[in-house]
Amino acid sequence: MALLDLSGIRHAVDARLGDFLAGKAHIAAERQLPGEVVQVLRDFLFAGGKRLRPLLCACGWYAANGRGDTAPMLTTAAALEMFHAFALIHDDVMDRSETRRGRPTVHRTLATRYRAGRSPSVAERLGVSTAVLIGDLALSWSQELLHAAGLSPTQLSEVLAVIDTMRTEVMYGQYLDVISAGCLTGDLAQALTILRYKSATYTIEHPLHLGAVIAGADTAVRTALRAYALPLGEAFQLRDDLLGVFGTPTQTGKPVLDDLREGKNTALIALAMNNADPVQQGTLRQLVGNSELDEQGAVHVRDILTATGARCAVENMIDDRRQQALAALHTAPFPSPALVCLRDFAETVTRRVS
Amino acid sequence: MALLDLSGIRHAVDARLGDFLAGKAHIAAERQLPGEVVQVLRDFLFAGGKRLRPLLCACGWYAANGRGDTAPMLTTAAALEMFHAFALIHDDVMDRSETRRGRPTVHRTLATRYRAGRSPSVAERLGVSTAVLIGDLALSWSQELLHAAGLSPTQLSEVLAVIDTMRTEVMYGQYLDVISAGCLTGDLAQALTILRYKSATYTIEHPLHLGAVIAGADTAVRTALRAYALPLGEAFQLRDDLLGVFGTPTQTGKPVLDDLREGKNTALIALAMNNADPVQQGTLRQLVGNSELDEQGAVHVRDILTATGARCAVENMIDDRRQQALAALHTAPFPSPALVCLRDFAETVTRRVS
Repeated sequence: MALLDLSGIRHAVDARLGDFLAGKAHIAAERQLPGEVVQVLRDFLFAGGKRLRPLLCACGWYAANGRGDTAPMLTTAAALEMFHAFALIHDDVMDRSETRRGRPTVHRTLATRYRAGRSPSVAERLGVSTAVLIGDLALSWSQELLHAAGLSPTQLSEVLAVIDTMRTEVMYGQYLDVISAGCLTGDLAQALTILRYKSATYTIEHPLHLGAVIAGADTAVRTALRAYALPLGEAFQLRDDLLGVFGTPTQTGKPVLDDLREGKNTALIALAMNNADPVQQGTLRQLVGNSELDEQGAVHVRDILTATGARCAVENMIDDRRQQALAALHTAPFPSPALVCLRDFAETVTRRVS
Repeated sequence: MALLDLSGIRHAVDARLGDFLAGKAHIAAERQLPGEVVQVLRDFLFAGGKRLRPLLCACGWYAANGRGDTAPMLTTAAALEMFHAFALIHDDVMDRSETRRGRPTVHRTLATRYRAGRSPSVAERLGVSTAVLIGDLALSWSQELLHAAGLSPTQLSEVLAVIDTMRTEVMYGQYLDVISAGCLTGDLAQALTILRYKSATYTIEHPLHLGAVIAGADTAVRTALRAYALPLGEAFQLRDDLLGVFGTPTQTGKPVLDDLREGKNTALIALAMNNADPVQQGTLRQLVGNSELDEQGAVHVRDILTATGARCAVENMIDDRRQQALAALHTAPFPSPALVCLRDFAETVTRRVS
């Protein structure tokens, strides 16, 4: 049985991103526009990243029996990765994150670049402003990639409808995330709402769906993809929340204190608040959302997350959702190579360490 | 001779914006998403604004002999105004502006909204984060308006190409603007480059061009529009630079010290630096870009801008460019109503006080 060539797909998506940015660099050089815009964005895109969304876009295409020229689907997949670059660059500004993919975040890189002749606070602000602008450009260029993907008018119209929904949902999700941070409520339902908007559908369902609509998927295929995607998307983000607290920075590329310092109201934290005794609750309130939190404090928090059973409960939620996603594949009308690939994804995104 | 009904066009564009946002508010209410997102954006859009870009989009359509259903053109015009909301919201964050259209800027409004139970610095940061997100949504929704404008595939493809160019140029212009602020160089060529990217083509040429391509304009019409638009766009921004320093805040809706405090490298400042004696140069370096600048300091700066002849030189540049724009209309193949309207625009945008 033929398997999907994921490494070939990844390579093709990266080549499209590289070519697109080379074109932008060429125009900037011709017009004497600052070359660091493209350079910083390219460094960010190629510093790492799992390319999960582009790969799922390709899987959605194969699941819907996509045939013929793969170029429009692959360029759409590249547009998704460009959108993701926008989302991460702006998120890191909002979360004041220092590192991403094991390197300084974009606003930190730019603050360093513009340090000469400026006070630290002015350079810091300039780093944030230019990072916001590079994010704005990545968002616009993601759109530009789509416009030039060679989609037929019908495909383009369906793709744009999915993209419109995806963008609005992920931005509302991030909005909910930032306004609820720093105030521990123990509200599990709210934590799951944020998770769904900010990450779950954005990471799994929308990419699969995009590939599927380009392949002209029928309702049965779309319904089957959704049944797989929704639980898996939640499991993906629940794993992310665990990695944000219990992960190994050398593997995740992110400092392990950021999520706790920001006081993100994750399901993990909500479960812990609900199960904690008053003393533990007090400790959580004092440490989670404290921008001065150190490793010693984080050890306390991790102990409480474990002792209250919250960590274990989240692991169980992940297991349940992985099982649901896998079960959805039993009756899915997908060709074998896509089925095998989606089964593997369900394992890797829920058991990953980075 | 029939005249264009500018007030009717403005009303129709506002109705489209209002309907679009009402739809978004309805969805947010249904899904229990935070209602302030739409509310803040609507308040911002309807607090004022000249609707210059939508009106020019309509003029471009009439100049190119647009006939039949005006709805796709009017919705495209509304999308331009939504894009402009994005640009202003993000610009105000970057420039740390306190007021716009006579009211607190979006990030200030949101910082106030989220003050309860938070320290001032945390509320401030939350105001910036949520303003960046509302800007991101406005950018996405501007695109969504276009997708639902009822343009034919050919029209949509041409419109998206203009929009892609416009977005990249205006973002590069803002990038140049922020990295060059605070360091007075006297580089007039650089000041004019920033002006062209950030504002001149964005404000006049691209909106006219959008209306024209929807009407199926031929090359002669496009060339004539460009000959009018380029000098007028520069004159528009040169007037803006003068108003930023010499304007009346009750008329402009913006504090008159913001541009000077940010140390924007405008043509006005570049000319003053080039013509100033060493003492005047020292005073400009000390005061322009000083975030503590007060009204008394601003009086000094204005005196130097006047004494060096910079103010007068900029007025002359505006006059020259208005004349060029008006001269371009002499040979333009536009119907009379569009001609009259464009002639009026050339006067109002260069002689405005707000």
